[in-house]
Amino acid sequence: MKLARIERLGLNGPEPRVVAVDLARGVVVDVARAGQSRLERAGHTPAAARRIADAHLPQSVAAGLGSACYREDLEQAIDSDPPDDAILALDQVKWLAPVDPPRFRDFMTFEQHHLSARHVLERPVPDVTYTLPTYYKAGHLSLFAHEQTIPWPGYCEWMDYELELGFVVGGGGTDLTPDEASGCLFGVTLLNDFTSRDRQFAETAGNLGPAKGKDFGTALGPWIVTVDELELTDIDLSAHVNGSTWAQGNSGSAMWSAAEVLAYLSTCEPLVPGELIGSGTIGGGCGLEVGRRLIPGDTVELRSSVLGALRNELGEPATLRWSPPARTPGRTIDGRGGVHLTELLPPRADAPAPPFPRSGP
Amino acid sequence: MKLARIERLGLNGPEPRVVAVDLARGVVVDVARAGQSRLERAGHTPAAARRIADAHLPQSVAAGLGSACYREDLEQAIDSDPPDDAILALDQVKWLAPVDPPRFRDFMTFEQHHLSARHVLERPVPDVTYTLPTYYKAGHLSLFAHEQTIPWPGYCEWMDYELELGFVVGGGGTDLTPDEASGCLFGVTLLNDFTSRDRQFAETAGNLGPAKGKDFGTALGPWIVTVDELELTDIDLSAHVNGSTWAQGNSGSAMWSAAEVLAYLSTCEPLVPGELIGSGTIGGGCGLEVGRRLIPGDTVELRSSVLGALRNELGEPATLRWSPPARTPGRTIDGRGGVHLTELLPPRADAPAPPFPRSGP
Repeated sequence: MKLARIERLGLNGPEPRVVAVDLARGVVVDVARAGQSRLERAGHTPAAARRIADAHLPQSVAAGLGSACYREDLEQAIDSDPPDDAILALDQVKWLAPVDPPRFRDFMTFEQHHLSARHVLERPVPDVTYTLPTYYKAGHLSLFAHEQTIPWPGYCEWMDYELELGFVVGGGGTDLTPDEASGCLFGVTLLNDFTSRDRQFAETAGNLGPAKGKDFGTALGPWIVTVDELELTDIDLSAHVNGSTWAQGNSGSAMWSAAEVLAYLSTCEPLVPGELIGSGTIGGGCGLEVGRRLIPGDTVELRSSVLGALRNELGEPATLRWSPPARTPGRTIDGRGGVHLTELLPPRADAPAPPFPRSGP
Repeated sequence: MKLARIERLGLNGPEPRVVAVDLARGVVVDVARAGQSRLERAGHTPAAARRIADAHLPQSVAAGLGSACYREDLEQAIDSDPPDDAILALDQVKWLAPVDPPRFRDFMTFEQHHLSARHVLERPVPDVTYTLPTYYKAGHLSLFAHEQTIPWPGYCEWMDYELELGFVVGGGGTDLTPDEASGCLFGVTLLNDFTSRDRQFAETAGNLGPAKGKDFGTALGPWIVTVDELELTDIDLSAHVNGSTWAQGNSGSAMWSAAEVLAYLSTCEPLVPGELIGSGTIGGGCGLEVGRRLIPGDTVELRSSVLGALRNELGEPATLRWSPPARTPGRTIDGRGGVHLTELLPPRADAPAPPFPRSGP
């Protein structure tokens, strides 16, 4: 099954609608409308059919994934001979990001990306690359759809793209093993983690990870392909800028599997249905690794024979209305109660002092 | 006004309820119940009063903050002589985190914390400290309330607390100036950003920021104090472990103001009502800076004369069911389409090659 979200015009204005994509027929099916029609034909009153369809097939994919019966509800709706007004031509829909995740965490699961990026930057590959699946918390409130223009922030001088897979979580749980976690993966989509490299490098020097360097916009879609239609370790991927191929790769080169990543995330905090997990950039899958950068107006298309094509144009640089002025060191060390540099407290009797790490990062 | 969320037992089980805190009378007022009662007395039918109160005073503070009239609705409900069943004794409520934010970003606005922490770790203070308000994306789905036990992750050997302010955003907007952003701040609460220092240091070596080192649990509360009751640059703060004072400070020592932080966040991506912003640790406000660490069973209490007291006990270390096994370097460089280290593409004719930074971080 291929699941997506589109925008349709309702009586109250534009509304998100969840649709199933039928590539063979070149159409999408509005699943809530199809489900309501099926329920009416099964003897429910129109009002009851509407109420039950709304509950089972909400216009939030994340909310739907909270139901244990969501997959079954979707299939029943699609297979029920949907009415004509539930069917729309594929080439005329306005896409939305295919999931509205409550959270988005993005990994670096591809060793080749670790190596290539650091080679170009002449930086060492840190040990943690091989001991933990590292990730950052990404911008779940600034997701863009297929064919949406990506805003170019006023602070960005060096724009890049990143060719990734997006994993959509279908089940929840805490402290899962990879075997258990593999059952929590609902589907996969294409993900383009647009990046202001200059801002990313400036801010990650502060040890808090990427922030404004990433969160202005991440593209996702066009649709989610459910895991039953995929061989997770053999998904071909490529990236094309204005039609020219910049990267190609395969999901089989990941160092950490999707199941391992989900299990790791579930350690001591719950995995939540509907959340989005990025695989991280596939080896070679960004301009940084191949010595190129993007300019305003470029069109970046990610492609996969099994996931489709995600295409986005970059907008013109925005004008900054305000930027933080630099601070003068020492001005805010004003002695208003802050503990001073040398004022360590005496050791606790009941606990050892920490073994302070004396070297990097 | 002091706003909080508590858990009450309804006919369908425990439910979150939004309450106003009246410290002088030692009570909290259930604002939706009070609002419903007020509307009935104003001539609405019970069903209409219930419907309107549900819409104006939802049990999500973040949702409520989306209404332009939320503050007014709250005040009308509280000032309307609430019925007895809307009033609960302060010392008998079960607290929830006072906001259910759609996002949580945590800064490092205190220069003294930058200096002290790096002094102890014998690391240089990076230049970005003085050029950008740096932050990380924190765990908005793992917030804990006053008096809740904080889970101790199985991977944590070095637990710490962090004494912070939590800013609750009341209004939205994009590309705001600090003057405009200052009107978007709804209120302030105490925030304890519990941290596994060993995991934090391990993972931030990978340049993606803190992840499992922070997101197992952040404490928040007990209530939000609205900005009209506060002098934002003169909030006293202290931290106490098992009754012993570990830190004290004042919000006046912040290097970046709340308005500057909100304006910076709004650059090229919208600020959203209900989101939570952490000030970062006040100077001296964590064990790292004073040479101490926490142990299981410790009780950490943050106090402020204007914000109240946020108290949390640390649980016993959890048992890990699974940990990521270390990887062998080079095993996943398998040539399945990834671009290799030396394969830079020829330069674009229409864009310069990036000026690769050749030094740190």
